[in-house]
Amino acid sequence: MSLDNLTRSMRPSVARIAADLDHFATLTEPGSGITRLAFTDLERLAHGYFGSTMSDLGLSVHTDSVGNTIAEMPGQDDAPALGLGSHLDSVPAGGRFDGVAGVVAAMEAARLLRDADIQTRHPFRFVAFAAEEGARFGQACNGSRMVSGVADASDLRRLVDADGVTIAAAMRRVGLDPDGWLDARWSPSDWKAFLELHIEQGSVLEHAGVPVGVVDAISGSTRLFIELSGRASHSGGTPMDQRADALAAASELVLTAESLAGETQHEGTRATVGKLDVQPGSITTIPGVVRLTLDVRDVDWSRQRRTAEKFLALAERACQRRNVEMKSTMIADASPVALSVPVREVIAQAAEKEGTPYRLLASGASHDTQMISHVTQTGMVFVPSRDGISHAPEEWTSTEDIATGTRVLLRALLALDKQAAE
Amino acid sequence: MSLDNLTRSMRPSVARIAADLDHFATLTEPGSGITRLAFTDLERLAHGYFGSTMSDLGLSVHTDSVGNTIAEMPGQDDAPALGLGSHLDSVPAGGRFDGVAGVVAAMEAARLLRDADIQTRHPFRFVAFAAEEGARFGQACNGSRMVSGVADASDLRRLVDADGVTIAAAMRRVGLDPDGWLDARWSPSDWKAFLELHIEQGSVLEHAGVPVGVVDAISGSTRLFIELSGRASHSGGTPMDQRADALAAASELVLTAESLAGETQHEGTRATVGKLDVQPGSITTIPGVVRLTLDVRDVDWSRQRRTAEKFLALAERACQRRNVEMKSTMIADASPVALSVPVREVIAQAAEKEGTPYRLLASGASHDTQMISHVTQTGMVFVPSRDGISHAPEEWTSTEDIATGTRVLLRALLALDKQAAE
Repeated sequence: MSLDNLTRSMRPSVARIAADLDHFATLTEPGSGITRLAFTDLERLAHGYFGSTMSDLGLSVHTDSVGNTIAEMPGQDDAPALGLGSHLDSVPAGGRFDGVAGVVAAMEAARLLRDADIQTRHPFRFVAFAAEEGARFGQACNGSRMVSGVADASDLRRLVDADGVTIAAAMRRVGLDPDGWLDARWSPSDWKAFLELHIEQGSVLEHAGVPVGVVDAISGSTRLFIELSGRASHSGGTPMDQRADALAAASELVLTAESLAGETQHEGTRATVGKLDVQPGSITTIPGVVRLTLDVRDVDWSRQRRTAEKFLALAERACQRRNVEMKSTMIADASPVALSVPVREVIAQAAEKEGTPYRLLASGASHDTQMISHVTQTGMVFVPSRDGISHAPEEWTSTEDIATGTRVLLRALLALDKQAAE
Repeated sequence: MSLDNLTRSMRPSVARIAADLDHFATLTEPGSGITRLAFTDLERLAHGYFGSTMSDLGLSVHTDSVGNTIAEMPGQDDAPALGLGSHLDSVPAGGRFDGVAGVVAAMEAARLLRDADIQTRHPFRFVAFAAEEGARFGQACNGSRMVSGVADASDLRRLVDADGVTIAAAMRRVGLDPDGWLDARWSPSDWKAFLELHIEQGSVLEHAGVPVGVVDAISGSTRLFIELSGRASHSGGTPMDQRADALAAASELVLTAESLAGETQHEGTRATVGKLDVQPGSITTIPGVVRLTLDVRDVDWSRQRRTAEKFLALAERACQRRNVEMKSTMIADASPVALSVPVREVIAQAAEKEGTPYRLLASGASHDTQMISHVTQTGMVFVPSRDGISHAPEEWTSTEDIATGTRVLLRALLALDKQAAE
């Protein structure tokens, strides 16, 4: 059967996708939005629902030592596997779709393959990663880091949550086996490719009016912590030309970051001051101290570093002019990852064949796929986020868009499966 | 005896001034700096020390119904009085000099007059005002407002502290008589002039290197509360041109206020953003909401209002361009007060005769004198604040500068006393 005929017969069910999303949304702490933190009972319940759904489809399911749940559909040959999936944990007061959309897409893909009784050449592995969000332990993508060898047992012992609980202790409390961490490692020879569907968490697709994004790169992120010390004094008593106003200096820095990222040679650079704290914070006192963070993201590693360096040079100059002292610390510096060009082309072709408009775009956020690219070639399919909002209760993606994304994802995987057979 | 010979024989004692300052500094709640709030036992103890010192000098002392303590030295004739003094309460964790410096100067002036056995023509009244700081009840200059008729019993019943205690209740707890408030009123016909020595609470004198300031006006203050609503979203996911960053908008407003006040036609305008709060305040989230305050001070009423209006127009335009919604509320709008030109000239002349360098300057902060100018002509003598710092434990003025200011103050009062005799 040709791939066209094959996929024409497989239409993702909006109703099944909606039911899965609804079910996962029940697994939350009380309060606004979704709260299902890494290595908690709620995250494990979500993994349980994923696992039992896949078992019911006849797949063999296991949860590895570090909490990732993997369901396997065997292939015809003894070939390396094709994988798909995402994560099931959330940030505090997050949304229904971040991570979950990709796991639900994988579940629907498995149902479609079973319903159509497709026998693929490569084994298909459907994965729900553990602990993707950095919200609880400060480090993101813990499950995918462990399988790809980017992290090891020392991370599990070192990283703690706000209550001082280590990742290892949190894992044990929910019945996982941190000591068996090495057993979770994936071998590159065992894999052909891995694909992840995820919500965009930005508004490029919405603005472009296209339902699917094909990710070419995942941004790196350079994060700075900056403390500005001026001189607090009475707002009435101090003339404008005798001030050392830490907030006026900080404001100049915010606009400097914005304008640097907005320069034409910086297309794709994103610079954000997300935290800013003013001391002493009184109506009638000139701010003496301001502490702020800068997050510079880019898909181009040298441009990311250059932007941060140029920002610091301009900031230093502005502060000197204002008699404000500046101290800066680099708190994180992760390099961007370029995703596999051949896989990207397969996904783009799948979208074209489906008649689905798409556009190439870079991911500003990190994803499990970033880690998995250390094991095998990877690709990502983005679906639109309403108003670009994510990590908030208002996060929203239409079930229809997830269904469309699932079709493109599945067609790309089947193309990769055929490709090897040619 | 000529005024020159008379004042040459009267040299303020740095030791006595220092001893008074040290004594008042013991009357504080525990903790950093000085905490001696309005209408507390500590404030009353300070008034008691002032009163008993003046009694010991043979002056007649009484505390009025609303807590101001007044010591009188009779004059030769049945002439209207010359007054001097300041306040004895502080902000929480304030300094040793704000208010106290002027009361100590009055105490030293009384001692000098007694030591030299001077008989003035006008009665001299030495005043310690109650409850000048707005820190406890939100309204400043309560004692001087009551004597000058700017406030009445309704203020005493209406205004409450953080615990819900009204001014009237707080007064009763320390033995005062809010129901007798009308008895405290001063009659204009009973006064010739009132002078106050105060620390500058700014750094104009320090920068100019002069020990004395002669105040020509007390600034008004227009205060705005501004809320900016943009759109919170992921710092990685959202391209620069699709953002509605409330902090970038706020930064533009901070710099707009600064540059408006810095324009040459605005000399004397002071614009300060002292409070600024960023929501949600996460490294990787574009700020969705920023709340800030603007304090515009000026000695020119129309310029003060025009600056606030021009700021709002520019802010509105910046926010529209950035797709950020702006709401603003005026939270206070007090007009400036011009002090008496003849009194100012007498003070300036006194400084010249003393060989004391001085400069004219406006007060950015409010003072009891602002209220007393509704009763009689007034003047103010400023002494330097180290680093311009006030309302903080670091507040500092040298005893020598207070002594110098006291000489100028006393000479000016004696000139006003003579002036009437000519």
